[in-house]
Amino acid sequence: MTEMLSAAALAQAVRSGHLSPADVAERCAATIRAREGDIRAFASLDLDALLAAAKAPGLAQKPLAGLPLGVKDILDTVDFRTGRGTPLFAGYRPVTDAAVVRMAARAGGLIAGKTVTTEFAFMTPSVTRNPRHAGHTPGGSSAGSAAAVAAGMLPITIGTQTGGSIIRPASYCGVTGYKPSFKLLPVLGLKPFAWSLDTIGLFGAHVADVAFAAGALTGREFGFEEDTPAPRFAVVRTARAHLAAPDAHAALDAAIAAAALAGAHLREIELPEALEAGDAASVPLQAYEAALAFADEWDRHREALSPTLAAYLEGAARVTPEDYDAARRAARRARYALADLFADFDAVLTFSTTGEAPEGLGSTGSPAFNRLWTLTGAPCVNVTGLAGATGLPIGIQLVGRFGRDRQTLTLARFLERAIAAA
Amino acid sequence: MTEMLSAAALAQAVRSGHLSPADVAERCAATIRAREGDIRAFASLDLDALLAAAKAPGLAQKPLAGLPLGVKDILDTVDFRTGRGTPLFAGYRPVTDAAVVRMAARAGGLIAGKTVTTEFAFMTPSVTRNPRHAGHTPGGSSAGSAAAVAAGMLPITIGTQTGGSIIRPASYCGVTGYKPSFKLLPVLGLKPFAWSLDTIGLFGAHVADVAFAAGALTGREFGFEEDTPAPRFAVVRTARAHLAAPDAHAALDAAIAAAALAGAHLREIELPEALEAGDAASVPLQAYEAALAFADEWDRHREALSPTLAAYLEGAARVTPEDYDAARRAARRARYALADLFADFDAVLTFSTTGEAPEGLGSTGSPAFNRLWTLTGAPCVNVTGLAGATGLPIGIQLVGRFGRDRQTLTLARFLERAIAAA
Repeated sequence: MTEMLSAAALAQAVRSGHLSPADVAERCAATIRAREGDIRAFASLDLDALLAAAKAPGLAQKPLAGLPLGVKDILDTVDFRTGRGTPLFAGYRPVTDAAVVRMAARAGGLIAGKTVTTEFAFMTPSVTRNPRHAGHTPGGSSAGSAAAVAAGMLPITIGTQTGGSIIRPASYCGVTGYKPSFKLLPVLGLKPFAWSLDTIGLFGAHVADVAFAAGALTGREFGFEEDTPAPRFAVVRTARAHLAAPDAHAALDAAIAAAALAGAHLREIELPEALEAGDAASVPLQAYEAALAFADEWDRHREALSPTLAAYLEGAARVTPEDYDAARRAARRARYALADLFADFDAVLTFSTTGEAPEGLGSTGSPAFNRLWTLTGAPCVNVTGLAGATGLPIGIQLVGRFGRDRQTLTLARFLERAIAAA
Repeated sequence: MTEMLSAAALAQAVRSGHLSPADVAERCAATIRAREGDIRAFASLDLDALLAAAKAPGLAQKPLAGLPLGVKDILDTVDFRTGRGTPLFAGYRPVTDAAVVRMAARAGGLIAGKTVTTEFAFMTPSVTRNPRHAGHTPGGSSAGSAAAVAAGMLPITIGTQTGGSIIRPASYCGVTGYKPSFKLLPVLGLKPFAWSLDTIGLFGAHVADVAFAAGALTGREFGFEEDTPAPRFAVVRTARAHLAAPDAHAALDAAIAAAALAGAHLREIELPEALEAGDAASVPLQAYEAALAFADEWDRHREALSPTLAAYLEGAARVTPEDYDAARRAARRARYALADLFADFDAVLTFSTTGEAPEGLGSTGSPAFNRLWTLTGAPCVNVTGLAGATGLPIGIQLVGRFGRDRQTLTLARFLERAIAAA
């Protein structure tokens, strides 16, 4: 196992002159050369271009300090073909970078390559291997982004989540995944799946790394809040608690104990019905929008879609505008119910996934503990540090208040430290 | 002046067998051949393909009954180059149709061509002439879409509005413009300008025509509501009333009188401060998003932008995340304030524009009476039937309740009939 790269630490080393951007790029390139053959995290890659770009003057003083980044191959890039995980777009060259890619470039990030996505960021497994155990899925859909960080190939990668495509692979690969508040990172240049849910986020080694990258990318203040009162956590197993494996429950118990030891106030609660109902509502909501988002592919290129996606879209086409409107109303009620919950709590602690990464590569795992939170638009963080029955990582999901991403990451770091100290 | 084409009437004639889709296509083609040289409504056009497509079997029974449509050239199309009104994208061929284009095709609409947009749907005037008076601007940015309907070339066209790009050209060209509730028509495949504001809408001859097309496109119920109580209209001149010309005030007075005669209850009110503040908030909101939406063009192709757009984006880059967040909060307050207003009223009657289409082609006119309503996401209709001092059209804008598009169009038809009867 190669050590993961801390984006925050590398940026500090570059800024203080202990490392140059070229040193960092060379270190990433060396790990990629050593491990990519096994991991297959990249859909396209240009290490020569990366090493050349790292020699540009002035990078060290920019917010991202010349750090190499990976961008999920569902986002448009001019400099790399954008295959979207499907033969339909093999070799596709967009004419415009996605907005978040330009933000990264402006901030002094260097795009090392495109990371593997499942087909159109849906459920059909990709070629990527889990760096923690090659025989287990890395999850999806942001498989390559999670794996590249887990394998120590890159310090920061960009992913996307419509159901659970950041938090789930982050948990399976043992990295920090951060799904920001809905629309915090602009989705322009992202191939849409469901526009009410599609969210761009980040993977890094630890909470400090994704917080650093979020601040550098957006120009917003993402420094951890200081002198905060003891966190008040709502522990939530949801109506789908039976889907979580015993070791997922045990990991959540361990997180609770660690947080309590660190001074947090915790209370296990049942979610109000209006919030629980958001999980079911996310299904027709996503489907109705997907049927329109893939209207062109469905009408013109149906034979090029995987059986999984084709079957999904066939069902999706049967969702009526009335079903959709009802789902949108349920989504709104769920958002209000979550906002009400945060009158008494600072964050929710819950499962990131149902357990360890499933064995085999035939499935990307279940988004059962992600859909509801994606629907609410609330910021979510996969916090690392715990493991399951076979020693593979099991993450804890921390869900914060919509628009309070800085606070959410501060609380996630609290939990991360508590788990490490316990 | 060629007579405008009623989409609803044509569809009915096709469905009842009095006309064939080919008859309708031939009629449109004849008018386009006769007038396009002067009007210049089209960025690209394929009349041979239109006439061939109109012979396909089964069109008459589809929701759009084989009607020819025009699509603003800011929306992606596979079958037509998508120039976005800029030399930067001259000849650009997207790989995927915009979702609304697929919706139109699925509903049995035939895309006759792409209608002229101003550069990236911003303020730099286009080549299109106003069919009501060639020496006056048709408005923008949906110049070609408004002009094609006004000139009787097409029964329905698709446009977009970020500031006032549907309602303003509709008013100047004397056609019905309908900006639906935000996100009613999916924006996938629209080149974004400001994602919190960009809205796809429709142009037609009369209210019944855009209502028919909206229903056919979306599969939603858009038939006019029956047996409705007497409408309660709030008449609003806004804090920008001084920008409206005397004949715009006179037109609004005439609309008030007509509506009252038809049985409506009307009350002239001042907008609550939280709602008025939305107008100012829309400026940094749009700018911040535009700076990201055009990040690629700005970084790579700045020299290819018009001076107007370049200057705008240069200023836009100075809007901070804090300014943006403040604008978003103001927008939310404005939406709540409008919802509160609708406790007492069914719709707002206000100016569509500052007056008649300005003389000359050096400006597309002012969105001063549009930005606020676009910001709220509320459905807006430009209602025709009145004229200004020189005999050019002056529309009345009817603003309905968010999500109540059917009710809004029902009220717009009430006003349209009242004006016609007065």
